[in-house]
Amino acid sequence: MVKGVDHVGIAVRSIDEARQFYEALGLEVESIEEVKSEGVRVAMIPLGALRIELLEPLEDDSPVGRFLTKRGPGIHHICLASSDVQADSEGLRASGVSVLRDRPTLGAGGHLVQFIHPKSAGGVLYELAQESAELED
Amino acid sequence: MVKGVDHVGIAVRSIDEARQFYEALGLEVESIEEVKSEGVRVAMIPLGALRIELLEPLEDDSPVGRFLTKRGPGIHHICLASSDVQADSEGLRASGVSVLRDRPTLGAGGHLVQFIHPKSAGGVLYELAQESAELED
Repeated sequence: MVKGVDHVGIAVRSIDEARQFYEALGLEVESIEEVKSEGVRVAMIPLGALRIELLEPLEDDSPVGRFLTKRGPGIHHICLASSDVQADSEGLRASGVSVLRDRPTLGAGGHLVQFIHPKSAGGVLYELAQESAELED
Repeated sequence: MVKGVDHVGIAVRSIDEARQFYEALGLEVESIEEVKSEGVRVAMIPLGALRIELLEPLEDDSPVGRFLTKRGPGIHHICLASSDVQADSEGLRASGVSVLRDRPTLGAGGHLVQFIHPKSAGGVLYELAQESAELED
């Protein structure tokens, strides 16, 4: 079941430049980490019940790098908190919604994640993420 | 001060078609209303602490209609809940951030709203909204 929005991912060319706007809003960068498997540097900005994630590509030939080349900086995806990514993925498939991977995979922070194809979701890239504490095994 | 995300606005060609994905996720459309001043039909979908707003243009020559023509369906804006839109707007201006209107204006639901220029916000259209109950006059 989907419980809410975990984070909104925003593609930026430079975290150092992009963070200035959020700091002008009174928000603070809580942490910055590199996720080399995704070719991205991620700045986390807590904002009420969710987080803004600034995504800076480590290389042009990465998912966020290609997004920037094609569309320029802006909102990249919305991540929904799920209590059971596998069950939600199966339910979506049964409704005719395309998900990108055969099975959920381990993502940043040990989360189990799945992505929904934007063609099935009105042009929006949705991620489903389940906290590792909720995994049974 | 910015307290969190109030809603995420998503441009769609048809609410009737787009809602099917959200219903497959187990979410429900709470209400649908026309906001003629903005040339838009709006479906509200509660999602945890915030709402997804599906925005269907009433005419092609409207902000959402032009967005669809230019970029296709997808995320249109992020609305931030502010405790004082006027003060936040002035603070942003003092930091060199461009806001779209000289003064906050009354928007849907009697909210006081302002928009931040995407060029000042890394390509993202941010709205600031203050609940009418928090207005002093």
